[in-house]
Amino acid sequence: MDGSWPIDGLDWETEVCEVATMERNSKNELMVYLTWNNGKKTAHPASEVNSKCPQKIIKFYESHLQFKLVEPYST
Amino acid sequence: MDGSWPIDGLDWETEVCEVATMERNSKNELMVYLTWNNGKKTAHPASEVNSKCPQKIIKFYESHLQFKLVEPYST
Repeated sequence: MDGSWPIDGLDWETEVCEVATMERNSKNELMVYLTWNNGKKTAHPASEVNSKCPQKIIKFYESHLQFKLVEPYST
Repeated sequence: MDGSWPIDGLDWETEVCEVATMERNSKNELMVYLTWNNGKKTAHPASEVNSKCPQKIIKFYESHLQFKLVEPYST
């Protein structure tokens, strides 16, 4: 990752291809791994990604969404 | 829910208190249930909430986030 990347600016929506994955690091911080349209891969605190490309992270969450039943199901 | 609610406009971030919950309806559409600062509760397609108050829905996802190990854990 060279010093010119990731791009400056507050809106990354058009430059980011997708959220590749996320994890909690050893400090219990939520880290997000981005794949950019140019193929580069970078890691950022979730707070930064939430702000700069919210639609990309929402798309990631929706694609991984699982529902749990919290009480007996009845119709 | 009266006809004057939810508010018009494209940015709901300051008017929405929180995402209460979400579910898939019988058409397999993802529906989001909002609680507003004035106490009203409304339901919307996720696509609308993603656009109009993305930070609120990201906060909901983060608060419900669970990680799964996808391969044997080793240090």
